[in-house]
Amino acid sequence: MTAYKNIETTTFGPHLIFDAYGCPYKTLSNMELCFGILSDLADLAGMKKMTEPYVIKATSNEFMGGKDPGGFSGFVIIQESHISIHTFAKRGFATVDLYSCKNFEPESAVEYLKKTLQPRDVDVIKLDRGLKYPKQNIYK
Amino acid sequence: MTAYKNIETTTFGPHLIFDAYGCPYKTLSNMELCFGILSDLADLAGMKKMTEPYVIKATSNEFMGGKDPGGFSGFVIIQESHISIHTFAKRGFATVDLYSCKNFEPESAVEYLKKTLQPRDVDVIKLDRGLKYPKQNIYK
Repeated sequence: MTAYKNIETTTFGPHLIFDAYGCPYKTLSNMELCFGILSDLADLAGMKKMTEPYVIKATSNEFMGGKDPGGFSGFVIIQESHISIHTFAKRGFATVDLYSCKNFEPESAVEYLKKTLQPRDVDVIKLDRGLKYPKQNIYK
Repeated sequence: MTAYKNIETTTFGPHLIFDAYGCPYKTLSNMELCFGILSDLADLAGMKKMTEPYVIKATSNEFMGGKDPGGFSGFVIIQESHISIHTFAKRGFATVDLYSCKNFEPESAVEYLKKTLQPRDVDVIKLDRGLKYPKQNIYK
């Protein structure tokens, strides 16, 4: 192994964090829409899906003091990263992650998500992940 | 709908972001270990798995200028949130997300991940997600 401290590094990739409040009930209770968002975001970020998106309905009420509103949870593995969504229709809340090893335009993804989820308010964070990702393989 | 501005809000939950550098090749090239991390972290955070963890091997070399080292990508949906891992054995890099609607001890998760992945260096961020999550349902 090359001594870790002597290797050239780069950034692994961007991670867009998107939380949406006050989305319409009708929008968030649409399972197919969740599937579509996962698929569209992959295309929008120019990433290849390694699998088809996977969406489940979570109806458990065991947590949050029995006040869990339930919702949809979905996920798609794209090349070496992922996109996820969790929706809670009764709370008007959706939370999305778009983590990619390839640069993409966060603005386009945010615009798409706002148009699709129709929130009244959003929180958006863009992180750079893997700040010390090696430019080359460190093992043969 | 209750006017969104008049509703009581809380925080949806913590999101632990963990990037690990200089992990041993043998550790990161162990698919079962990736599966185990997803399972263990759910238990450690006291979260119920909605599905079994799902891990795939990504061998595509189409991106990063054909220098993609490939790796494992895994994911498990826990109650209304998720845990993910992506490993790149040849680069010694692993990137983990633990996003939960339930409070957990990030320190325990970080300690577990350090012990399991044996990195030389890490970046750790803890975010609070869903800062305006409604305390009650806003739709009936």
